[in-house]
Amino acid sequence: MAKQALVMGIDVGGQTTKLGVVDARGNILYQSVISSLQRELSSYVEDITTAIKDLISQSENDGVIKGIGIGAPNGNYYKGTIEFAPNLKWAYDENGKPMVIFLANMIRDIIGIPVAITNDANAAAVGEMTYGIAKGMKDFIMITLGTGVGSGIVIDGKIVYGHDGFAGELGHTIIVRNGRQCNCGHKGCLETYTSATGVARTAREFLAERDEPSLLRELDPEKITSKDIYDAAKKGDKLALEIFEFTGKIMGEAFADFVAFSAPEAIILFGGLARSKEFLTEPILKSMNDNLLQMWKGKIRLLYSTLKDSDAAILGASALAWEL
Amino acid sequence: MAKQALVMGIDVGGQTTKLGVVDARGNILYQSVISSLQRELSSYVEDITTAIKDLISQSENDGVIKGIGIGAPNGNYYKGTIEFAPNLKWAYDENGKPMVIFLANMIRDIIGIPVAITNDANAAAVGEMTYGIAKGMKDFIMITLGTGVGSGIVIDGKIVYGHDGFAGELGHTIIVRNGRQCNCGHKGCLETYTSATGVARTAREFLAERDEPSLLRELDPEKITSKDIYDAAKKGDKLALEIFEFTGKIMGEAFADFVAFSAPEAIILFGGLARSKEFLTEPILKSMNDNLLQMWKGKIRLLYSTLKDSDAAILGASALAWEL
Repeated sequence: MAKQALVMGIDVGGQTTKLGVVDARGNILYQSVISSLQRELSSYVEDITTAIKDLISQSENDGVIKGIGIGAPNGNYYKGTIEFAPNLKWAYDENGKPMVIFLANMIRDIIGIPVAITNDANAAAVGEMTYGIAKGMKDFIMITLGTGVGSGIVIDGKIVYGHDGFAGELGHTIIVRNGRQCNCGHKGCLETYTSATGVARTAREFLAERDEPSLLRELDPEKITSKDIYDAAKKGDKLALEIFEFTGKIMGEAFADFVAFSAPEAIILFGGLARSKEFLTEPILKSMNDNLLQMWKGKIRLLYSTLKDSDAAILGASALAWEL
Repeated sequence: MAKQALVMGIDVGGQTTKLGVVDARGNILYQSVISSLQRELSSYVEDITTAIKDLISQSENDGVIKGIGIGAPNGNYYKGTIEFAPNLKWAYDENGKPMVIFLANMIRDIIGIPVAITNDANAAAVGEMTYGIAKGMKDFIMITLGTGVGSGIVIDGKIVYGHDGFAGELGHTIIVRNGRQCNCGHKGCLETYTSATGVARTAREFLAERDEPSLLRELDPEKITSKDIYDAAKKGDKLALEIFEFTGKIMGEAFADFVAFSAPEAIILFGGLARSKEFLTEPILKSMNDNLLQMWKGKIRLLYSTLKDSDAAILGASALAWEL
């Protein structure tokens, strides 16, 4: 009997890189994790290729891995590169200059299997379209709410890569002119308000500006997480609820502008902060509908990823590999 | 000898509707114009179908018209409709409610030739891609600067229609939160700053807020046009130049957000205000590059349509018809 075809999906995160062997039905058969914190590119490439080889050995009896898909910060689908990835030390030379890393070709040359790469948010969107709530959808926008805010834009059933392969940086559209300082160097990017760190920043601002009581005052302001705010909101904490209202309002304003661009069927939220949907949905929808043109009011769906966070990234990256 | 295939392009504007018969090389062989100011839909349909029949008769010896393409405000490609077109009286019933007008089917049923419709900015983008400066480009954004601001977004060689056919309303992305009141009901839309009327509004604001001398003070503020401001800038008028700088700055801010969405090769400007390019280019490019992510700085081209305004709309609409 011929062995079944398998693919490998790899999610390159700021802290860890997750690898998984995936079958045609979207089951993750084997998984492993390595650190992403290496200083040198050569160390990272050695670690990741070792992990890939181990997974290939493990899955030898189950099937043949025909391709590897990688989701990575600023992964470029056209060139198979990682470029300008501020969270990855090994993506910068000793003078702190960003390097263009031909990761897809490097891995292909060592492992001998075709490799495709895209950014993590695009990978999540492909995963959602292949296995998740976006199955059958041709026009949607995936917003990933993590340490940063990423986006995967699907138009007419295809990921939008743009002229240079870098399209879909919606976390860096400017939602508050001259607003909060962003890591990218600009001020007021969506990411500074609606990422997990952005929401924690909102909490610190609200706590400093107001004097009403709040469960959040019991915490070290510098260590407040979006999970803490969720927990407080669950207990009815008024300030925590207002933080989600503020966050949802900003998201809705941004999403209305995105709808004016590509008129998607749905906006799909993914990532840690999306778990606070019970507090975010209403303010997002109100704000989005307040800001949409008449013809779109009440018509754009707000959905949440149905895939587990870690699975979605691996599955999405792996889905790229089926096309190799 | 078989007669050559021809198409008809129709540009539905707020004041007039322009029709043209176009050959395969993009020559406009015959043209006519009718008013768009009819109160009743039935009158408009009668006038437009009469004009179409006249042009068909005129071109009978030159070839056979195989299709009709229409560019119209809020023209919907999927449904062949005009919907929510605030500038067209006949698009509203006697109670002022917007009607869904199946204009493509109405005309097809009377004339007996296939008809396609899209909005005027999409038509301009198709025209530019077929006959103009965007020839061969696969990813660009066309911004039409007229009484309003429209947009035609091309990704991977195709117009973006979105889930409902209404994608590409970039004139109604909000560029100044709580800014100028827009006809759409919202505040701060790009259109309120960078349309011809928006620029005139800027002139009135600047004249009221400042007391420096300006050639523009000799004009009735309520009647100032973008042409007046251009003429004054040509003569070195400082206030007029500052109006263009302000307008260019806002455009650049908006364009940077658009680039973050679809990473186009170029932004292409079209329409009356684009004729002021000598005063707009520098402030737009400076502001856009100031607001772009590092990887895009200096890489996005700013271009101006090379087609005559009226020709572009007819040619673009006609290009739709070749695919029928």
